[in-house]
Amino acid sequence: MDRRSFLKKSALGGAAATTLAAPAYAQGKRTLTMVTTWGRGLAGVHDSAQRVADSITAMTDGDLTVDLKAAGELVGAFEVFDAVTSGQADMYHGADYYFVGQHPGYAFFTAVPFGLTAQEQVNWYYHDGGMELHDELGQIFGLKSFLGGNTGAQAGGWFRKEINGPDDFNGLKFRMPGLGGKALGKLGASVQNIPGGEVYQALSSGAIDGTEWIGPWADEKAGFQEITKTYYTAGFHEPGASLSVATNRDVFESLSPAHQKVIEIASAEAHQWNLAQFLANNGAALQRLQSGGVKILEFPDSVWDAFGKASQEVHDENLGDDLYKKIHDSAMASMKSSSGWLGRSSAAYVAQRDRVLG
Amino acid sequence: MDRRSFLKKSALGGAAATTLAAPAYAQGKRTLTMVTTWGRGLAGVHDSAQRVADSITAMTDGDLTVDLKAAGELVGAFEVFDAVTSGQADMYHGADYYFVGQHPGYAFFTAVPFGLTAQEQVNWYYHDGGMELHDELGQIFGLKSFLGGNTGAQAGGWFRKEINGPDDFNGLKFRMPGLGGKALGKLGASVQNIPGGEVYQALSSGAIDGTEWIGPWADEKAGFQEITKTYYTAGFHEPGASLSVATNRDVFESLSPAHQKVIEIASAEAHQWNLAQFLANNGAALQRLQSGGVKILEFPDSVWDAFGKASQEVHDENLGDDLYKKIHDSAMASMKSSSGWLGRSSAAYVAQRDRVLG
Repeated sequence: MDRRSFLKKSALGGAAATTLAAPAYAQGKRTLTMVTTWGRGLAGVHDSAQRVADSITAMTDGDLTVDLKAAGELVGAFEVFDAVTSGQADMYHGADYYFVGQHPGYAFFTAVPFGLTAQEQVNWYYHDGGMELHDELGQIFGLKSFLGGNTGAQAGGWFRKEINGPDDFNGLKFRMPGLGGKALGKLGASVQNIPGGEVYQALSSGAIDGTEWIGPWADEKAGFQEITKTYYTAGFHEPGASLSVATNRDVFESLSPAHQKVIEIASAEAHQWNLAQFLANNGAALQRLQSGGVKILEFPDSVWDAFGKASQEVHDENLGDDLYKKIHDSAMASMKSSSGWLGRSSAAYVAQRDRVLG
Repeated sequence: MDRRSFLKKSALGGAAATTLAAPAYAQGKRTLTMVTTWGRGLAGVHDSAQRVADSITAMTDGDLTVDLKAAGELVGAFEVFDAVTSGQADMYHGADYYFVGQHPGYAFFTAVPFGLTAQEQVNWYYHDGGMELHDELGQIFGLKSFLGGNTGAQAGGWFRKEINGPDDFNGLKFRMPGLGGKALGKLGASVQNIPGGEVYQALSSGAIDGTEWIGPWADEKAGFQEITKTYYTAGFHEPGASLSVATNRDVFESLSPAHQKVIEIASAEAHQWNLAQFLANNGAALQRLQSGGVKILEFPDSVWDAFGKASQEVHDENLGDDLYKKIHDSAMASMKSSSGWLGRSSAAYVAQRDRVLG
């Protein structure tokens, strides 16, 4: 569907179309309320939200102070989008693929199955049209969005039994958001979208049979190894999951150009810092999990083949939407171009380094 | 040698020990002069310096305006370190491995042979002690340093003849800075350190037989394909070359905490933006080079083996310096921890993606 028909159909689009009065504020200090999709203290993801908030506050000497309200403190995790488009909060930090119901194109600003790695994502975002397309989506809903965090490639996840073929997903109650979850549904899984802060309880109670969350470090902090010992490393669903900072567009436009730039640069810096945080911590965490008796596995090729087919079907189903297609084609063309050189350069180097150093 | 004896031996250390009077300046606008190691307009590297300068200026609404002087406009490329430690300029943007003569530990803040990829480098820098060690080095010379750019894994380079074994480096006049150059010297090469803006002329005139510069996009812009058609992709010498922003420490300390944070965040953001810039452009550039008749090659295993042995020798020669050893051990431990998970996650994912998508 094209953007016009999309806007007609979307209640949220309608809400966003109501222009908010630009908030009046004193020339001096101003506080922006940031809501997040993360429970307070959730390893890595809350940290990146806090870093954006702290950097903005510090760089403006408090002229722009960001007051962070974690999930549940002002609104629930999945309510942040509505809260910011309606003006209830000034900005959110979250994973945009939670909002594929608002527009499926949002998936590309977190991660899509069989899509871009974290590095390919930033190549596309900052230099190959991604940021402009994020803004085009934001204009529909009255948001000004920037990437503001990244978890790196997410782990395949936690299971109660080993996965030996695609049929093992049939009837499995599994937590996986975004288009990855839709792909898993095509394998017969009963897919749930549950906020991070509630996943442990869902797995522990048996409400779900398995879950992906992020990777060894954040997963260990969440404590899933207390519930099951079967862990898959590489996953197909989020090869480099970005997190976003979205500001109510009227609020953003009411800020000075300097403060607008501060939000932009603070968000981008948090993206790099956060990705490095996950990757600096995952190696040691995986070793601890392994020492603690967790069995570390990789999906067999037959499962990857099924993931690939299902992912393609999900993309195909959405390509009728003009903006989805525009974002998809842009991201995939950039990925293809980026990945060729990455394979010939850093990947080839690492292979030789590992061979020579042993 | 330990830091104390290093300081005694170093003329520069001596200069830095002379405390500069904190410059007085009006409470209002202030201009900082940034000198760089890059000729004006050099693809990617000049761009990252300009981005740091522009971000600082924009985020402070010009209260802190950075005036960029490219190589040769105020001082020569390799004179920026002295210019900033002496207070002639306020800050530099450059590759810190140009200054291994000042301290060999500086190599780690660009890249070291058989060392960290760009991603491993940021993991280490922001979360595993690298930034603190950069600061420890900076304190010796009166600098406050941050990473502020990255070229990604650098290409093996341009040669007049193919390299079939390590002996082919014997007697070869080759441009390669930093510890990579020192390693290449152990293979019998006559290694030159030439600023980027002067490499084309050196290769063209026959002053050197070959050169590495950066990668397909920047190399194409430099025009090396006009001189020779033999190009090696993966290299051992700079698996992810960071660029640095170093501010005279007295100048830095005279700034408000907000402006200090602006320099820190602007530099870090430029690191990510610049790495993405190179990687977004390299794929298409490599294809153009190939279409234009450039032969794309990889070094044989025997050459990688020799690179590995020579690189280890170079590290070993420097390990007697306490600070070098401290930086080396920190970086290598972080690399080992990071790379394990990267291999199991994004690398394993990309291998499956390429296999499934074909």
